[in-house]
Amino acid sequence: MPIGSFHPPLRTLMGPGPSNVDPRVLEAMSRPTIGHLDPLFITLMDEIKTLLKYAFQTQNELTLPISGPGSVGMETCFVNLVEPGDKVIVCQNGAFGGRMRENVIRCGGTAVMVEDNWGDPVDPQKLEDALNSNPDARIVAFVHAETSTGATSDAASLVELAHGHDCLTIVDAVTSLGGTALKVDEWQIDAVYSGTQKCLSAPPGLSPVSFNERAKERIRTRKSKVQSWFMDLNLIMEYWGAGSQRTYHHTAPVNSLYALHEALILLQNEGLENAWTRHQNNHKLLLAGLEAMGLSLLVEKSHRLPQLNSVRIPQGVDEAEARKTLLKDYNLEIGAGLGPLAGKIWRIGLMGRTSTSDNVMLCLRALDEVLTNIGADINSGRALSAAQGV
Amino acid sequence: MPIGSFHPPLRTLMGPGPSNVDPRVLEAMSRPTIGHLDPLFITLMDEIKTLLKYAFQTQNELTLPISGPGSVGMETCFVNLVEPGDKVIVCQNGAFGGRMRENVIRCGGTAVMVEDNWGDPVDPQKLEDALNSNPDARIVAFVHAETSTGATSDAASLVELAHGHDCLTIVDAVTSLGGTALKVDEWQIDAVYSGTQKCLSAPPGLSPVSFNERAKERIRTRKSKVQSWFMDLNLIMEYWGAGSQRTYHHTAPVNSLYALHEALILLQNEGLENAWTRHQNNHKLLLAGLEAMGLSLLVEKSHRLPQLNSVRIPQGVDEAEARKTLLKDYNLEIGAGLGPLAGKIWRIGLMGRTSTSDNVMLCLRALDEVLTNIGADINSGRALSAAQGV
Repeated sequence: MPIGSFHPPLRTLMGPGPSNVDPRVLEAMSRPTIGHLDPLFITLMDEIKTLLKYAFQTQNELTLPISGPGSVGMETCFVNLVEPGDKVIVCQNGAFGGRMRENVIRCGGTAVMVEDNWGDPVDPQKLEDALNSNPDARIVAFVHAETSTGATSDAASLVELAHGHDCLTIVDAVTSLGGTALKVDEWQIDAVYSGTQKCLSAPPGLSPVSFNERAKERIRTRKSKVQSWFMDLNLIMEYWGAGSQRTYHHTAPVNSLYALHEALILLQNEGLENAWTRHQNNHKLLLAGLEAMGLSLLVEKSHRLPQLNSVRIPQGVDEAEARKTLLKDYNLEIGAGLGPLAGKIWRIGLMGRTSTSDNVMLCLRALDEVLTNIGADINSGRALSAAQGV
Repeated sequence: MPIGSFHPPLRTLMGPGPSNVDPRVLEAMSRPTIGHLDPLFITLMDEIKTLLKYAFQTQNELTLPISGPGSVGMETCFVNLVEPGDKVIVCQNGAFGGRMRENVIRCGGTAVMVEDNWGDPVDPQKLEDALNSNPDARIVAFVHAETSTGATSDAASLVELAHGHDCLTIVDAVTSLGGTALKVDEWQIDAVYSGTQKCLSAPPGLSPVSFNERAKERIRTRKSKVQSWFMDLNLIMEYWGAGSQRTYHHTAPVNSLYALHEALILLQNEGLENAWTRHQNNHKLLLAGLEAMGLSLLVEKSHRLPQLNSVRIPQGVDEAEARKTLLKDYNLEIGAGLGPLAGKIWRIGLMGRTSTSDNVMLCLRALDEVLTNIGADINSGRALSAAQGV
């Protein structure tokens, strides 16, 4: 029996990413493939760099999408900046700080962990203490917007502390880019990586990164070769660099770049600050509805990400079963908790194109119905009107 | 002035890849994105594995597409199989053997090079000599189908020699998969990687790989951690592995996988051996036309790849200018030479969906016109009828 074509259903993607992709972006992705050294493609690459600089709020020349998902962007930062023997302070307040630690170790570095509870922001005081106790640290790494918890940390302050101790900074902005304030130049972030499938609402598979002059200087003056050939920025720059002469490094994911280009045009046309405001407004609607149902968020108000809402699961609810019903009966995907938060929270994403008031209402109605049907202890029937009243 | 949408022209892609993507595959790529842990997506992943096993002619359970271009597939093989201090024999007869060497070194291994001229196949005698002189070698790596030259090597014999000396084999099948005979199980290849943008005619961005039990055993018994977190097969398998329980590792490039799935269905429907025959037949047409013009191929008849034809550039021709004219006036892309072959050859690809008799005729007519117009010393006007007479 031969295998037939795959026709996915129309899901509403309110998990931790991917988010819903605009039909314009999907259509762009299906435009005819051209060569990765075609002069017209070089123009496209230049435009993507310009649009990414806008999204990151940076003038960094070395701003480009790495040809792999966000994890490759993360690894690109670490393999280029960490040399064997380097000490790196990693602030962990969720799943992705742990992945950073793994990266440091695999680069031959030493990771000094600064731990905060999952759901809390990174505590600047703890970072400062770690910097004082580790004067030989060369890099500070932290997650700006923790996708596993929905907490944001004060990136500007953390970077300032790191610079005060002569450390470079690597910042995970996978979930913040395009959804909430991220100002790479103003905050003086040295190296930053993100993903396409969160608040940019392009399909997953690419990782925008940006490096400032300090980071480039560190890479230029490395004593050892970057351990990854594919992620070696010295080589990647010969393909993505300035000027019309580009040296073949790898075959770029041409159609994925069409999609990213179109998604960035949507962001340009909306305006970055308008997009931030939209994310904030729809978060308020969702929160009003959730609170009217009697549900609460994991993260304190001052550190909440509008695009990733961690909702405490009501007692006695089979959370996996509830998610399955939402998916089956409402074509609605929400996310499970990771690590210590598994079984304790749902993660409701309002990222990129998913962040609309219609989707908020769909989610509130579906959650209300599913939880009421299984007899959960909630205030049934109040969520929608509460959200509408915002 | 805001940046506008990108609308690529309809190119005929007869370079070394990407090849032309079937409209069915482009359409599949633009289907709505679903989550990377959606149960329906897990089904799609399983089908892709089944279809890839067919394409590779293998029963290897560990057969999957890596979420990055072919270079990431290459690096995945090396970082998982090479440990610091390992000696690896690398057969080089073109550009990609050199890249393999870079990978070995960056994994902390020692590369023993077996060199053949660019355009020649790997000489089994030279490999045997190297194996005899290096009884401590643990791996033999070579390129099955050299994209930089158009030469194929006798993979079955090279693997047999390696196994006779207790070495594992890593084989680059980027250009052979789907275009010319590749029999992973029959030839007992231990680890193999390929790309999607050559004879599979999916857009670039994924790298199908396959590992047999011997290779898996080597990975299981490593003394050190795989240096790349993203490419660590121990972790990747928890997401791509058997069973319905999948552990999140990275966000899969969902839409790119839709495209690969559809491209593999086209291959399944045509039949693998029919695809090989089609590639061979269209190569014969092209060759008849080229020879009638007085042009010749770099590679000896017995080692020619039908899907990648390296054509010697006639004396006095500005090859870059000719390619530019082909692109501008005919929307036809052909490839330049790499490394020592730069300026000496063009690379004409007849890969995947590009391999049709219509495209051969278009290419012959365009080449004839362009070369005649610039006064090159060719037999004008004979190519088409020669090809039609095959």
